[in-house]
Amino acid sequence: MFDMTLIQRGARLRRSPFFEATQRHGAKAYTVYNHMLFPICFDDLEAEYWHLLQHVTLWDVSVERQVEITGPDAFAFTNMLTPRDLSKCAVGQGKYIVITAEDGGIINDPVLLRLGENHFWLALADSDVLLWARGVAFNSGLSVNITEPDVSPLQVQGPKARELMQALFGDAVTKLRYYWFVETKLDGIPVVVTRTGWTGEVGYEIYLRDGSRGGELWERVMNAGAAYHIRPTGPSDIRRIEAGILNWGADMTLENNVYEVGLERLVDRDKQTTYVGRDALLRIRNEGPRRKLVGLEIEGARIAFNATKWPVASAAGKAVGPVTSAVWSPRLKKNIGFAMVPVAQAALGTALQVDIPGAGTRQATVVPMPFIDPAKEIPKS
Amino acid sequence: MFDMTLIQRGARLRRSPFFEATQRHGAKAYTVYNHMLFPICFDDLEAEYWHLLQHVTLWDVSVERQVEITGPDAFAFTNMLTPRDLSKCAVGQGKYIVITAEDGGIINDPVLLRLGENHFWLALADSDVLLWARGVAFNSGLSVNITEPDVSPLQVQGPKARELMQALFGDAVTKLRYYWFVETKLDGIPVVVTRTGWTGEVGYEIYLRDGSRGGELWERVMNAGAAYHIRPTGPSDIRRIEAGILNWGADMTLENNVYEVGLERLVDRDKQTTYVGRDALLRIRNEGPRRKLVGLEIEGARIAFNATKWPVASAAGKAVGPVTSAVWSPRLKKNIGFAMVPVAQAALGTALQVDIPGAGTRQATVVPMPFIDPAKEIPKS
Repeated sequence: MFDMTLIQRGARLRRSPFFEATQRHGAKAYTVYNHMLFPICFDDLEAEYWHLLQHVTLWDVSVERQVEITGPDAFAFTNMLTPRDLSKCAVGQGKYIVITAEDGGIINDPVLLRLGENHFWLALADSDVLLWARGVAFNSGLSVNITEPDVSPLQVQGPKARELMQALFGDAVTKLRYYWFVETKLDGIPVVVTRTGWTGEVGYEIYLRDGSRGGELWERVMNAGAAYHIRPTGPSDIRRIEAGILNWGADMTLENNVYEVGLERLVDRDKQTTYVGRDALLRIRNEGPRRKLVGLEIEGARIAFNATKWPVASAAGKAVGPVTSAVWSPRLKKNIGFAMVPVAQAALGTALQVDIPGAGTRQATVVPMPFIDPAKEIPKS
Repeated sequence: MFDMTLIQRGARLRRSPFFEATQRHGAKAYTVYNHMLFPICFDDLEAEYWHLLQHVTLWDVSVERQVEITGPDAFAFTNMLTPRDLSKCAVGQGKYIVITAEDGGIINDPVLLRLGENHFWLALADSDVLLWARGVAFNSGLSVNITEPDVSPLQVQGPKARELMQALFGDAVTKLRYYWFVETKLDGIPVVVTRTGWTGEVGYEIYLRDGSRGGELWERVMNAGAAYHIRPTGPSDIRRIEAGILNWGADMTLENNVYEVGLERLVDRDKQTTYVGRDALLRIRNEGPRRKLVGLEIEGARIAFNATKWPVASAAGKAVGPVTSAVWSPRLKKNIGFAMVPVAQAALGTALQVDIPGAGTRQATVVPMPFIDPAKEIPKS
């Protein structure tokens, strides 16, 4: 079993309701995300990738800590946090959104669920949006409650996910449109089931609403999944990079805006009400971003998944920015990734050089994203 | 060398300017703190403890990410974030403060440094105060800039710390009063040196102001420290628990207030201006807190440092709260720690029971804190 003292000291870091289950099922490593321990692998990266492509995987994403916003002004307030127009989000529907700072920087890119007219959840990437939202609320004059509810998601992803969800929940779930959800129970365990994921494959998330029943829910899914060859995994960074899915903290941070990272579709330009960062985003859009996150093919032998941001230089040798994610794609048989470069280096076909620590300099070329489309069942959003 | 893939996936987690140095010097484990890798041990907990008590230790605390607040209203704004009265904090002086939420909850317990009339740094515990502060500023009407500067502290702690700092910086540093600081250089490397620490021993922090020079600063301190038998370590949780020093995230969280955790000295009751959480803290003080963090002696054989919060029950067997930190004190030859319990169980001498996962139930008694006073050079604050 993994020696937890390699990654924690004292009781500061929280554990998922599925933590003991991940230990029983052989998690080999954990990282930390939103102040919680996060299982990142049960096998090697490529074995988990092929399993995701062929079968169905179970991934503990409790670390997507929820922020719950309720109260009489919950709609007005939540709508103020994002450039998406939430008047277009029905109760029962979710949206992939960005939370923007006053300067247009990306604070987080959560999945938002609208559980009621004035009831929202944000399933977070790795930053304390609870503190941001409470800070913004402080002087807002709006009446809201902003808390962290007892809600912990699991991802069920892969081509057999639909059949497994059918077996677990019946038609109500398999009829879900992309990003919609239902509130339901499984053997009396309260859950919300969404049609969402972070893999580019067909997938669902099961949001557990009672942390005391994590082990029970995990085993229930694993047992039903046996017929579909389910296995627990960590995040499939290979697949998400192939699909052009970004990882907040690596591919985009508070220093970036949607126009730099290709998320301008998350700005509803006809939105009638104001929101934090609107003026800044208008200005950036009018001026044009100074840099862009581009797709990159990196020549040469197979690379290991980058653990740091790698320096990128222009063909003339001038430092231009970092590779933010890069990995070997077993299907493309190429090294692929993302780099943040000035617009002058962002055109398709631009030749660049990547300095890989300990592995020398490689030639690279700017290419279109995604590298491999998401599964055909997933609409372009 | 430690296998970093055991605790990270991709380039999301940042590295300290001293990261390569900690690798060269044999760090055996890392955790994650403020989205950064944090070296937590170079030897076993007790070996590092005795070294801290007898010699001098070097500890990479770059993870105390700084928030810098500048601009014409920086004083007014920063003073609004904390119940301490910053009009009593001179330029050149620091303060241990709490940042409070509107409900009085503790968002963070940083060391604040006042570098100018309108220039502050907060050296943070593990929560995104950058987001909180920017959120509060958004509707505040105050003109401030809130950023994360390129500033990375090192701790130099232990009875020989003063001699080492004298050798490195001369009298300007060794004459510092507790919590005061100087801006200076070491071989041209820009630093701020404070008389602060997290050990209960005599100590200093060197805040590096140029991240490109981390390795250089580290080796400079190690070389000068050789004469004082310096060695790199992680945090000394044994010594800080003996001294009654709290760890945000474990011993106190956003769910707690200063009256629960014995930090009421960080509220200046004669403060003339308002601040976030003032009304809530007044109410809590008048009503009295419902629970208290108490010192605990736990009977029986030596315990391992707790990695989770352990359940505490009353003598009658009723669950009353968690142990937040507990460890074996080699000097007291006792198991000591902190527990958060209802005021009914908080009186000195109260008998409690602690349920240690995998190690059965132990009798415990509420005792005074600290268990061992801080070094005599450290004033009661």
